[in-house]
Amino acid sequence: MAAEPINLREKLAGLLEHWSPRVVAELNDYQFKVAKFEGDFVWHEHAETDEAFLVLEGSMGIEFRDRTVRLNAGELLVVPRGVEHRPFAESECQVLLIEPRGVVNTGRSGGELTADNDRWL
Amino acid sequence: MAAEPINLREKLAGLLEHWSPRVVAELNDYQFKVAKFEGDFVWHEHAETDEAFLVLEGSMGIEFRDRTVRLNAGELLVVPRGVEHRPFAESECQVLLIEPRGVVNTGRSGGELTADNDRWL
Repeated sequence: MAAEPINLREKLAGLLEHWSPRVVAELNDYQFKVAKFEGDFVWHEHAETDEAFLVLEGSMGIEFRDRTVRLNAGELLVVPRGVEHRPFAESECQVLLIEPRGVVNTGRSGGELTADNDRWL
Repeated sequence: MAAEPINLREKLAGLLEHWSPRVVAELNDYQFKVAKFEGDFVWHEHAETDEAFLVLEGSMGIEFRDRTVRLNAGELLVVPRGVEHRPFAESECQVLLIEPRGVVNTGRSGGELTADNDRWL
């Protein structure tokens, strides 16, 4: 396994779809995924794991059942396991997700925004 | 457990020591740590885990036994478990480390640059 630097901006330049995370690196059984968000995602939760969002460019929000959190570039938020959340972005936002291998973006909520899992970029 | 945004730049502004990673968030049993690097670190390895470096500002290098890799802001590198490496930075570099809870910065190499573990900022 080679240790090669991954330029996140370059990776994101090759990603055109919104709400379609792509794996760029693995750390043990965790994955780093880049994603572009725009518009409204669906309410969902991940029963088995926390999920980290690090905003690389732009800004986004995460709606929880009791409040809404804003996230700007350079800000990190960890959504605890089992907590319902709904990401959204008024304009395109570039994000790094960190979570265990195998996490599905819509949790068990499903729907048309469910992305194929484990797609590399 | 609250899900609060963590501003990495603000966290780093409060960190004055070099080579002294501070935990800013946890993701399951993994930790996000901010650190400032300047000068030469020691050769070491982590036998039990991969280790991720994401450069937030500045640039750094990681020397391996067979080559040296440069890392600039916005670049991510995962050092595989068991691989000897030596980070360095000609001038101050701000880094986000991601690794399991309990990883000691100098591995088993020890020495004066060994930082207290699990210190939060």
